[in-house]
Amino acid sequence: MRKGCLVVVSGPSGAGKGTICSAFLERASGIAYSVSATTRSPRRGEVDGRDYYFVDEESFKKMIDGDELLEWAEVYGNYYGTPLKKIQEKIAEGKDILLEIDTQGAMQVKKRFPNGVFVFILPPSLAELQRRIRGRGTEGERDIEKRLAASEGEIKMASDYRYVIVNDKLDDAVSSLSAIVEAEHCRASRNQDIINEIVNN
Amino acid sequence: MRKGCLVVVSGPSGAGKGTICSAFLERASGIAYSVSATTRSPRRGEVDGRDYYFVDEESFKKMIDGDELLEWAEVYGNYYGTPLKKIQEKIAEGKDILLEIDTQGAMQVKKRFPNGVFVFILPPSLAELQRRIRGRGTEGERDIEKRLAASEGEIKMASDYRYVIVNDKLDDAVSSLSAIVEAEHCRASRNQDIINEIVNN
Repeated sequence: MRKGCLVVVSGPSGAGKGTICSAFLERASGIAYSVSATTRSPRRGEVDGRDYYFVDEESFKKMIDGDELLEWAEVYGNYYGTPLKKIQEKIAEGKDILLEIDTQGAMQVKKRFPNGVFVFILPPSLAELQRRIRGRGTEGERDIEKRLAASEGEIKMASDYRYVIVNDKLDDAVSSLSAIVEAEHCRASRNQDIINEIVNN
Repeated sequence: MRKGCLVVVSGPSGAGKGTICSAFLERASGIAYSVSATTRSPRRGEVDGRDYYFVDEESFKKMIDGDELLEWAEVYGNYYGTPLKKIQEKIAEGKDILLEIDTQGAMQVKKRFPNGVFVFILPPSLAELQRRIRGRGTEGERDIEKRLAASEGEIKMASDYRYVIVNDKLDDAVSSLSAIVEAEHCRASRNQDIINEIVNN
């Protein structure tokens, strides 16, 4: 049987990776979203096991010590991490799994899953990225500047990914992500069992 | 600007690569078919420049000596080859080009275009391949046996390609080929100029 693909999507804030991933998951079949574990408190409307696994710090540290996390990070005093076991199970079942994660986390994942499908979402331009981030209108000028600087830093990491998608039109970007996953299913390296079966029967 | 992709499709006789390529070319836009040069005589209905470039042996040998062919082979006393210049022009223009070619030719192409998109079309099984080849009803038993033995030899080369497509249903196979070409357009290595442009503007 063919193993599933681990699809890792990153991109700077404002590039639209969340929207692309949601639209892709709605369209695609047989792909699951990887739910992260976190020590931060649930926000209104967030459901344990769907949005995050909400755990306390002691449990989280046990997961780190037990090597149960594919990657993790501490952000503003809260821990965030990707449980490894679920991912391994899905992949063994031949299912794809989608991981939306920052560049630092993605580079950690790459060490463990070099055959993962690493996709970076780019904005059409920095000017457009700026427009999108400002357009949210939820942040002060200082936070916006910080976020833009961070985004520029992230974009420089794009070459470390296998694929880049320029998010000019949402529909095109979702189609590209679908095409990438379909193409990866056809990679000869993922189909050696099928080749052998045909040769030997 | 992004360069075009050289898409190289191989597969054993009976796997359906010709049908897949024709259907794909009808659907796709911006992809051209590479027309081979040959010294064999045109068959009824074949048009020079569309089906083949029909040339005499002297001209063909000049093309070999002038390194004007990407690959070539002699089959039953006739020469067949792929003119290099057209391919280089199309790729430089950002257009994709499709090359339907046997495994030996494909391996020659790989040396010159390691970034080519190498796709191998597989039959669902050897039994099905046999059924398809026999179903043509145009050949004697001896030729059929020869063709089947050659097909088995070709299938063993599938692992040397980047992608394999199992041609179970024609529509699915064409979709997979389309997805592969779309995904290859998103390869980070083909988009370094775009990444640099976004970072620097």
